[in-house]
Amino acid sequence: MSNEKIPYKIYLSEDELPKQWYNVRADMKKKPAPLLNPGTGMPVTAEELGHVFCDELVKQELDETTPYIDIPEEILGFYKMYRPSPLVRAYCLEKALDTPAKIYYKFEGNNTSGSHKLNSAIAQAYYAKKQGLKGVTTETGAGQWGTALSMACSYFGLDCKVYMVKVSYEQKPFRREVMRTYGASVTPSPSMTTEVGKKILAEFPDTNGSLGCAISEAVEAATSQEGYRYVLGSVLSQVLLHQTVIGLETKTAMDKYGIKPDIIIGCAGGGSNLGGLIAPFMGEKLKGEADYRIIAVEPASCPSLTRGVYAYDFCDTGKVCPLQKMYTLGSGFMPSANHAGGLRYHGMSAILSELYDQGLMEAKSVEQTAVFEAAQRFARVEGILPAPESSHAIKVALDEALKCKETGEEKTILFGLTGTGYFDMYAYAAYNDGKMSDYIPSDEELQKSFDTLPKINK
Amino acid sequence: MSNEKIPYKIYLSEDELPKQWYNVRADMKKKPAPLLNPGTGMPVTAEELGHVFCDELVKQELDETTPYIDIPEEILGFYKMYRPSPLVRAYCLEKALDTPAKIYYKFEGNNTSGSHKLNSAIAQAYYAKKQGLKGVTTETGAGQWGTALSMACSYFGLDCKVYMVKVSYEQKPFRREVMRTYGASVTPSPSMTTEVGKKILAEFPDTNGSLGCAISEAVEAATSQEGYRYVLGSVLSQVLLHQTVIGLETKTAMDKYGIKPDIIIGCAGGGSNLGGLIAPFMGEKLKGEADYRIIAVEPASCPSLTRGVYAYDFCDTGKVCPLQKMYTLGSGFMPSANHAGGLRYHGMSAILSELYDQGLMEAKSVEQTAVFEAAQRFARVEGILPAPESSHAIKVALDEALKCKETGEEKTILFGLTGTGYFDMYAYAAYNDGKMSDYIPSDEELQKSFDTLPKINK
Repeated sequence: MSNEKIPYKIYLSEDELPKQWYNVRADMKKKPAPLLNPGTGMPVTAEELGHVFCDELVKQELDETTPYIDIPEEILGFYKMYRPSPLVRAYCLEKALDTPAKIYYKFEGNNTSGSHKLNSAIAQAYYAKKQGLKGVTTETGAGQWGTALSMACSYFGLDCKVYMVKVSYEQKPFRREVMRTYGASVTPSPSMTTEVGKKILAEFPDTNGSLGCAISEAVEAATSQEGYRYVLGSVLSQVLLHQTVIGLETKTAMDKYGIKPDIIIGCAGGGSNLGGLIAPFMGEKLKGEADYRIIAVEPASCPSLTRGVYAYDFCDTGKVCPLQKMYTLGSGFMPSANHAGGLRYHGMSAILSELYDQGLMEAKSVEQTAVFEAAQRFARVEGILPAPESSHAIKVALDEALKCKETGEEKTILFGLTGTGYFDMYAYAAYNDGKMSDYIPSDEELQKSFDTLPKINK
Repeated sequence: MSNEKIPYKIYLSEDELPKQWYNVRADMKKKPAPLLNPGTGMPVTAEELGHVFCDELVKQELDETTPYIDIPEEILGFYKMYRPSPLVRAYCLEKALDTPAKIYYKFEGNNTSGSHKLNSAIAQAYYAKKQGLKGVTTETGAGQWGTALSMACSYFGLDCKVYMVKVSYEQKPFRREVMRTYGASVTPSPSMTTEVGKKILAEFPDTNGSLGCAISEAVEAATSQEGYRYVLGSVLSQVLLHQTVIGLETKTAMDKYGIKPDIIIGCAGGGSNLGGLIAPFMGEKLKGEADYRIIAVEPASCPSLTRGVYAYDFCDTGKVCPLQKMYTLGSGFMPSANHAGGLRYHGMSAILSELYDQGLMEAKSVEQTAVFEAAQRFARVEGILPAPESSHAIKVALDEALKCKETGEEKTILFGLTGTGYFDMYAYAAYNDGKMSDYIPSDEELQKSFDTLPKINK
């Protein structure tokens, strides 16, 4: 089909929506390394994981062979309230950049959580409800995940306890109110409500908190109460599985109009959006059916792929979770308070880490003032005010489109616009006032956090 | 077509989008009363209005006979970035209410301005640009209009000066940053930057501001600078004209699936959303082709339709604008600071006022704690966090759906969900903390503001 006919926004009909998630591990010859029990150093069993996660989610976490997994009817029904998300042809941006590149973005921000996080939140809440649980606990950084989970729990009538990274809790008071409106309780982390929180506060009384700390507190809160389990918004393979709804919709929409992306770009913190967006494309790449250039974009202030090591590490600061082999900065890594927004996790999804290690995708790191410059430029022509996280992908998409302008190449660029920046106005204000700065950790600083890696790597 | 097949969300394709706005005045036998020059008491001329508004917008303001007006290509292009908006079947809400009623809402919140206001902002910015102006000035209350205009001006490279009602400026600092991100300047009103602002501050130094004050300041700022005009986000007939894109999309989507609403509900401040939503349905009603029950919902704290008088009034506190015949509380009316969100204008669109006076629509007023209760109930089942303004319509839609539950009637209810509440979290926090209160002006208070009506009515 000719590009002339491509609308500004492609919406799939309900009939065209994915009815199964895609498990990319099934098509990987070399699988991600197994999760290990931190005590024994042996692969964790379903039973061990079942103390922390819902049974069905444990099954999904450990399933490396089933390529397609049915999406339950109840989840499909919820998806229909806010999905499909639009695949947008950025005609206005292309014109403003005067580039021959064709730019598309999959926009996940048109729901109240403001991001793609809802795709997994509703799945995890559903399985918790189905198992007859009272509620779930979780951590949240920038607040997108916590909001998404609050919405999902409210829908199924589950209790929801959120541990929010302290610096975000203070920078984003309105996020807290959204979560409360959906009935969740929100505690700044580290807190005195858990043993691990007390321990971290004793050692680092002035800490801004980190996702690693908040995870430890949420896990403790789940495992110390009857009828609760812990749920997580990124990093885990189950989360990437749920997020494949993004990539599957994108692929269907692109196939419908005969569009083939040359470059696929996504921001990467724990990897949930990137993993979801690229999954069906990566599947083709793994099977040798197509080739795509895939770029993960991370903050220069938290550069797990570009400056981390590929090793077994703790998923949380309190070291209560299983060990995962991943690109990591060490669980002791604390992102600078100067860093705005999310993408502040010390490690990366095991699936993405393995794909990156196999050379199937690239990674770039970008500094935040350049990211906000790209965000503002994008907002002024495409209308949407992007989240700082999403703007990492925008920055690299703009760079690639401008390269096409130099070379005259008509490349097709696809990027994930994961969410909106309505709750990031302190950061935008800092940028508007010229008060935003950048921070790049020194080699010494990183070496210090690599020293927190578990002994099993030695 | 059977209701069984109606999707959760109906999106029109680009081909189905309206290419003309509908001018409902053309089908009104008795037209709205003409705008009057406050000095002479005579109908204002196009030349007089041309000092304040862009030429093409003056033409639209005064045109009572052309039923359909072409939407320029440049505006259609911009509309395609964020339109069509979805017509949503509220399946989850119906289930939660256990009502036989069929509930639909037209959701205008999926753009960065967070509301329908962008539909008119882009039109007004386009005509200003076409006329070769440097920039525009405006007022904003809750901030939705100012944000929308900032986005539109940034798109066309126009300067944008926003006077923001002081209480909103203070309650919504993040709105200001969104406007600044789009390049606008934002001044709290009343301010010392205009003569009228100085005068109001001298008389009422502790005022919270009002839309009426802010309009006066914006008009003065426009008329005292070369190359500037004033633009307004509601009340005017030109604004209602642009907003008919809402109703036209809704009607097309409903016709496509054979849906006929029994009741149409919209919140009403100045009337821009309600006027736009109901236009094509009202057109059928005026021509005797169909009948619909139409309900305007306003805050009990600012009840222009339900407790106002139908009279000529000043559109602004400074009394510099033409006189308009409308349902009004008097231009001296100042809404209580207790009132959260928008819908705080003292008068109502001349078109809607006349239709209401002819008995073609009803009006209800509702108190804000009940509005937030409805908002929370809606959010928890439909996902979307609604703006306080929109939640006025939700409240009455819930009431009507619950009446159907009692009577067993399967009525079809349509309401306008004008926007999202992401920038209203102080108000939600007050509601969450049980600290929200209601305010109903006394008869004495209203009588006092009626005394500010111009002598021409006597």
